[in-house]
Amino acid sequence: MTILDIIEKKRDKKELSKEEIEFFVNGYTKGEITDYQAAALVMAIFIQGMTDKETANLTIAMANSGEVLDLSKLNKIIVDKHSTGGVGDKISLILLPLVASCGVAVAKMSGRGLGFTGGTVDKLESIPGYRTDITINKFIENVENIGISMISQTLNLAPADKKLYALRDSISCVESIPLIASSIMSKKIASGAQKIVLDVTVGNGAFMKNLHDAEKLAKEMISIGKLANRETVCVLTKMQEPLGYNVGNSLEVKEAIEALKGKMAEDVKDVVLELGAYMLLLAGEAESIDKAKNLLTENLQNGKAYSKFMELVKTQGGDVTYLEYLENFEESKYVEPIYSEKPGYIYSINAKEIGKLACSLGAGRVRKEDKIDSTVGVSLLKKVGDYVTKDEELAYLHVNNLEQLESAKERIKQIIKIREDKAEKLDTIIKVIK
Amino acid sequence: MTILDIIEKKRDKKELSKEEIEFFVNGYTKGEITDYQAAALVMAIFIQGMTDKETANLTIAMANSGEVLDLSKLNKIIVDKHSTGGVGDKISLILLPLVASCGVAVAKMSGRGLGFTGGTVDKLESIPGYRTDITINKFIENVENIGISMISQTLNLAPADKKLYALRDSISCVESIPLIASSIMSKKIASGAQKIVLDVTVGNGAFMKNLHDAEKLAKEMISIGKLANRETVCVLTKMQEPLGYNVGNSLEVKEAIEALKGKMAEDVKDVVLELGAYMLLLAGEAESIDKAKNLLTENLQNGKAYSKFMELVKTQGGDVTYLEYLENFEESKYVEPIYSEKPGYIYSINAKEIGKLACSLGAGRVRKEDKIDSTVGVSLLKKVGDYVTKDEELAYLHVNNLEQLESAKERIKQIIKIREDKAEKLDTIIKVIK
Repeated sequence: MTILDIIEKKRDKKELSKEEIEFFVNGYTKGEITDYQAAALVMAIFIQGMTDKETANLTIAMANSGEVLDLSKLNKIIVDKHSTGGVGDKISLILLPLVASCGVAVAKMSGRGLGFTGGTVDKLESIPGYRTDITINKFIENVENIGISMISQTLNLAPADKKLYALRDSISCVESIPLIASSIMSKKIASGAQKIVLDVTVGNGAFMKNLHDAEKLAKEMISIGKLANRETVCVLTKMQEPLGYNVGNSLEVKEAIEALKGKMAEDVKDVVLELGAYMLLLAGEAESIDKAKNLLTENLQNGKAYSKFMELVKTQGGDVTYLEYLENFEESKYVEPIYSEKPGYIYSINAKEIGKLACSLGAGRVRKEDKIDSTVGVSLLKKVGDYVTKDEELAYLHVNNLEQLESAKERIKQIIKIREDKAEKLDTIIKVIK
Repeated sequence: MTILDIIEKKRDKKELSKEEIEFFVNGYTKGEITDYQAAALVMAIFIQGMTDKETANLTIAMANSGEVLDLSKLNKIIVDKHSTGGVGDKISLILLPLVASCGVAVAKMSGRGLGFTGGTVDKLESIPGYRTDITINKFIENVENIGISMISQTLNLAPADKKLYALRDSISCVESIPLIASSIMSKKIASGAQKIVLDVTVGNGAFMKNLHDAEKLAKEMISIGKLANRETVCVLTKMQEPLGYNVGNSLEVKEAIEALKGKMAEDVKDVVLELGAYMLLLAGEAESIDKAKNLLTENLQNGKAYSKFMELVKTQGGDVTYLEYLENFEESKYVEPIYSEKPGYIYSINAKEIGKLACSLGAGRVRKEDKIDSTVGVSLLKKVGDYVTKDEELAYLHVNNLEQLESAKERIKQIIKIREDKAEKLDTIIKVIK
């Protein structure tokens, strides 16, 4: 077997065997197969596609290319949750303590943000003292003791995926459904997930711009899950306007804490309950979706979800007084209100544009090595479908650099679109595929 | 314009503009575009194809990527000849002095052999003293003075093609018609050709294994020629059995000298006259193919072609006594006759197998840096269609390493296939495309 034979086979649209895929993944990880050979193969895969079997084999080979987290010690069904990315997406911060409070073991490794989408780790780190870099033993110990731990990816998980993703990015081969699917699933499998609930976002602020592609991606991931023996459920959700009201790290954490205390935006609640219900179901902690949703709603109302988050933050070294007194969070230097210039209905708040605006203020990274500013961002006061009067407050800009303020004000006024005709609220949950 | 946009466009089967192709070729030659980005683009081109316009633009960009030989000083229509490669192909050695003797200016840069096909430069160098590495000024001076010079590629011609070819070889992207066509044509254009006659070989011993592909390649090169303003004629010839009787460097030179003296194998003569006639026609030295063939035949018979070769060898520093006395050429240590084991008709002498056999004896290179042995090779005494009796001599093996002899004898007996049923002689000229 040589890499030349493998490239030729895929070039000619033939199915690669498990052994051939492993040969490539292992050889590339070790540097025995060059970047240009991998680039040629990836382009051939992009154009000629992969069968479900090939995609599953690629996923498993990438999952096994580095360290694999062994959570068997926990003696629990480990259900992982993942979102394909969105703007204002603070779901994990609310959902995971909530399901933990319902008995689901949460051992969650999250990533940092890149581009206009944020990352859960960055958000957690805006709570002073919160350690996302604890050891794996400590991580597992925390899950054992309090049922939840949320950290950053400290292990060398799926290095083949990391290497391939960087390569794809530099050869215009990112938007391939089988490659995206195997990239996501390989990391989930390597991080010890036995069952997986995926939030597949669709819209301008998501990776998948249209429903057709999102459905394809969902089906591909479910198929990988079946072949890799990891039951997988996909919830397709809209990502047209930002999720909830806040975009920016500490702004989102504060919104999440308020949600855990009982005050939650409708769209956020829809996603939390839908994902949470499937997590409970897969973990064997509820018998039906309805019963699961009841249990979740109960634990939001009775404060158990919030207590679990308090416990999590405390265990990870975070200062819990910030949770009790949200005003403790450092504010940006300037908080600028934005007023409506006319009365009418809000019919569009483009999520991607809001994400890019927040990123430009310092909330996100353009390059991996950039530092982020946890205090800046955008707080919306209105959602699509809301009616506003002239001069009513629409949003706040949280800014530290005064020079950015004027252009940011102009941009956000362009982004929040108002018209005379009535505009409908956006549905958040599109469908569930399992 | 970025390489990412260009890769994406070709990935999606869109036509690249002249500017985009130049951006890629220049960037890749300078090393500003990486091997893995080039690999991705080449694979996309391989799978998605290129339009005639794209192929012509790629050709011209590659031709202009390095030095371009300026032959305008010669004030002659420069007609170049090229073969897509074969076994026993000594056509240039006979054809070029012949057309030079008919008034066509011959300024020929040739390559060395690689794999089972030989190279004209290697063959010329088996004449003691013959310098293939003279300066370009001396090269042009020789053409001015005696109407012919044949040297090796000393200029940095089409470096983009060189780099791309090596890349294609390492990513299973060699057999692409537009890439092969542009590779060949770029070198011809860079070496100063105004008109081009191409011997497109077809068969087991050629790059193109079947007529369909050979026709596609020929049409592609003619189309490039049109768009690049270089009139091009393709003669499709069969490469099933070796051309002529000898395979190996000095063996082929000797056969070529004998041919110039008037004793030429039928298949060699067919190719020489067909290519030669079109060279004369394109150069304006004959009015019709028939008249051209008459002129060529005349100059073979009256010794003018041979005299021109003598003049060439002398001018390039070669020892002309070798031409007069072929026995001066050094012989291999062992010359082993091969006898027929049964009576019958020869129905196959696989050219590729003979080429590989000669190569294994030392006549060719497996890697670029290998040294070749000019004395070794295979002399056939029979061609396909010939009748042989039992124990009749079929061939000679010219060997320097005694250890190779026994297995070589076994191999050649396998290659020369004999049967009771009558076998037809192979036609050499398949068709002409212009």
